Amino acid sequence: MAKEITSREENYSQWYNDIVKKAGLADNSAVRGCMVIKPYGYAIWEKMRDQLDKMFKETGHVNAYFPLFVPKSLFEAEEKNAEGFAKECAVVTHYRLKNDPLQKGILSVDPEAKLEEELVVRPTSEAIIWNTYRDWIQSYRDLPILINQWANVVRWEMRTRPFLRTAEFLWQEGHTAHATKEEAIREARQMHDVYAEFAEQFMAMPVIKGFKTENERFAGADDTFTIEALMQDGKALQAGTSHFLGQNFAKAFHVTFSNEKNENEFVWATSWGVSTRLIGGLIMTHSDDDGLVLPPRLAPIQVVIVPIPRPEPLLLEKAEQIRKALQDQGISVKIDVDDTKRPGFKFAEYEMKGVPVRLGLGMRDLENNVIEVARRDTREKASVSLDTVVSHVADLLEEIQQNLFQRAINFRNEHMTEVNDFATFKEVLESKGGFLSCHWDGTSETEEKIKEETKATIRCIPIDAPEEAGVCVYSGRPSSRRVIFAKAY
Amino acid sequence: MAKEITSREENYSQWYNDIVKKAGLADNSAVRGCMVIKPYGYAIWEKMRDQLDKMFKETGHVNAYFPLFVPKSLFEAEEKNAEGFAKECAVVTHYRLKNDPLQKGILSVDPEAKLEEELVVRPTSEAIIWNTYRDWIQSYRDLPILINQWANVVRWEMRTRPFLRTAEFLWQEGHTAHATKEEAIREARQMHDVYAEFAEQFMAMPVIKGFKTENERFAGADDTFTIEALMQDGKALQAGTSHFLGQNFAKAFHVTFSNEKNENEFVWATSWGVSTRLIGGLIMTHSDDDGLVLPPRLAPIQVVIVPIPRPEPLLLEKAEQIRKALQDQGISVKIDVDDTKRPGFKFAEYEMKGVPVRLGLGMRDLENNVIEVARRDTREKASVSLDTVVSHVADLLEEIQQNLFQRAINFRNEHMTEVNDFATFKEVLESKGGFLSCHWDGTSETEEKIKEETKATIRCIPIDAPEEAGVCVYSGRPSSRRVIFAKAY
Repeated sequence: MAKEITSREENYSQWYNDIVKKAGLADNSAVRGCMVIKPYGYAIWEKMRDQLDKMFKETGHVNAYFPLFVPKSLFEAEEKNAEGFAKECAVVTHYRLKNDPLQKGILSVDPEAKLEEELVVRPTSEAIIWNTYRDWIQSYRDLPILINQWANVVRWEMRTRPFLRTAEFLWQEGHTAHATKEEAIREARQMHDVYAEFAEQFMAMPVIKGFKTENERFAGADDTFTIEALMQDGKALQAGTSHFLGQNFAKAFHVTFSNEKNENEFVWATSWGVSTRLIGGLIMTHSDDDGLVLPPRLAPIQVVIVPIPRPEPLLLEKAEQIRKALQDQGISVKIDVDDTKRPGFKFAEYEMKGVPVRLGLGMRDLENNVIEVARRDTREKASVSLDTVVSHVADLLEEIQQNLFQRAINFRNEHMTEVNDFATFKEVLESKGGFLSCHWDGTSETEEKIKEETKATIRCIPIDAPEEAGVCVYSGRPSSRRVIFAKAY
Repeated sequence: MAKEITSREENYSQWYNDIVKKAGLADNSAVRGCMVIKPYGYAIWEKMRDQLDKMFKETGHVNAYFPLFVPKSLFEAEEKNAEGFAKECAVVTHYRLKNDPLQKGILSVDPEAKLEEELVVRPTSEAIIWNTYRDWIQSYRDLPILINQWANVVRWEMRTRPFLRTAEFLWQEGHTAHATKEEAIREARQMHDVYAEFAEQFMAMPVIKGFKTENERFAGADDTFTIEALMQDGKALQAGTSHFLGQNFAKAFHVTFSNEKNENEFVWATSWGVSTRLIGGLIMTHSDDDGLVLPPRLAPIQVVIVPIPRPEPLLLEKAEQIRKALQDQGISVKIDVDDTKRPGFKFAEYEMKGVPVRLGLGMRDLENNVIEVARRDTREKASVSLDTVVSHVADLLEEIQQNLFQRAINFRNEHMTEVNDFATFKEVLESKGGFLSCHWDGTSETEEKIKEETKATIRCIPIDAPEEAGVCVYSGRPSSRRVIFAKAY
């Protein structure tokens, strides 16, 4: 029968690892902190990537590719950025291995092949890209540059978890260059909106849109916009960030342009990225103790048809008709033709893999012109006429997408607590978790003290937070709007 | 007017570099031997990737992702493979930079963050993948594994050229695992066929399908199948390879399976790859002294519409109608709305960029219900009725695709010379270049001597070479079939 997984209540962290492993999403590798993304996990990433890529292109962006390596001297150029990433950089120091003269088959680093300058494996690409933009930008006519890159990056994290925090991960990073501050801010906000739309409409994962405090900003940014999602265990997940970089990189890399008045100015910049971390967010937003639950819009297999009890020719013939009709509506369907496993085993497998809709077809069904339709999200089953099953399934996929989103919104709303004093803050954080909406006095000092005492950080200052007079939950000093605290991944 | 480029006759190598730069395909970077793939070059790669990915999926493959880094001990495991790549490996030795205590803003490698085991940046992924397959394969029921990966790889080449040979490049690498030798060979040959079909039907680049001599095989392969194309300067380009790896990696990584009789056997393997090098092949197959020439099936912009002399509203309105109608047929169209440049300048730009079809529309044309249609491949122009322009252009794109392919076949055939003695061999190689079809005695010794004396190598033993008695062009010893020699990129 089904592969057993740890229940969420028993151990949420183990439940997550079980899902990743047993749904076939990722595996550990021989390299510390690096995962293997297995075909099923990668298929989800392909769905995400294709949709995001479409949205980036619709907003005028093009893709390009910049080198994996950043020479150390370039990496240093923007000081805050360098400082932010220096402690977690993989560094290439040599370009050759040689045979060990004493041990056959053993290779060692060739000391004669030491690089004159070390190369940092990119943790992010602002440095290498802005060093290139210097050559591409002379006049305002060369602006804006609206480039995105799909790439791997490396950050040598000490504690890693599949998808959520890995030494190497896949992501996209947009890097844009603009003639004016206003245009750059507009761009950063636009991509912030794109991320929120993707998270909500495709991942069915509600997010709070806000900006980061100075403490939590991207190293080198003047402003960081973020989307923050809430996981089932009450912890927040930073799901995507879009940065207004001001002129910091332009100044570090001497990137100027002559404006319409023929005056030289520094270029304005943004960068924005989401990564395979989103798959972790997807898992922890929807899945349950029976396995993965996927929103239909990102499910590699949207519908599976299982002939019962085994793949007889008559059942396969009908299944193929249904598959074809669903495929014509753009729905991806798998017919299970395996005749070595029993239906119950298969059902558990597809539940584990989060296939949104399962159709079970037996000879008796065929005689009665019906088919069993089971939905993954609510586990409900219904017998549906074969005459209408195609439109029924198409509607049901849409309904599941909306249901998952609504369920996640409800959960998020239930775990959004207005808190006005620090005792309650600590109590709610420990008992219920979730987002704490509180007044804060605006100082890094208070922010850090709260973090020290509770491990909660300011996830964001919500963009739509209304002006509201109040006093800081920690210091009692005056505050004019609430911010969102939470413990975070 | 047009940006000037060096003519092919004057300096083929400089012509190539000029095209890469002036068509906006790639740029040098701050990292030795690594290029920046610019948006237009990357758009061609996206077209290639999407088509290849489709063909891989149609032949039953799925994508996955394996780590960038290979621990040195794994890298060593398959000895021939390790030996083949050891001399060109980028090696990560440290995982942290630290602030230089004496110089503010200067970072240095932190000696305390030395890795216990060095990490090789993958030059190819057999080692890391077969180390993973060991955990995935127990029984014949786990086979075959048909996985492909799109990734970046690094080979520290001493002499680099954009696309053709770069320290970092983008590619796909298929890695499959099979229960029998026959099935693995069938897979390797199937992907060889897929590559040939892609090269000919999409790149319009004719290829010779053959297998490599032992000298020229992939390090670690039992057999390497290759597609070899001929560039305009008479040199060959190895455009894609598919390897039958035997049980070499299974033995090195102890990957066994229990067969239907419950006996343990080593798994059989293939790997196959093409890379951004194909863009170099595309350039050198079709382009001319006015710039890039692209086959329509891989052109990011297939049709450009230029309002003449400037983008008047009436002209734009008509252009938009045409664009829409062409787009409905799946044709990508750009309307040039720039009003700061003259038509002659624009024409030269689009020729430089290799846009297959250019439509020029003036007010007089509009009155006469015609439009000027210019094709990039032959430079012919025709005045076509606006009533039929859409179907005319659709047909013309197909005709250009076929014409480019036929032109390249003719060139290749004209540069395929049967040679039967070594004096002629040297003479033809120097005067005319191209492929030399010759008898060879089958020894590495002869192969190496010919290489030393002429720089020509055996590109492949063609798969369809007929049995034919002859004598080796160099040694005079008997031979039973001809092989293909050429100087190569």
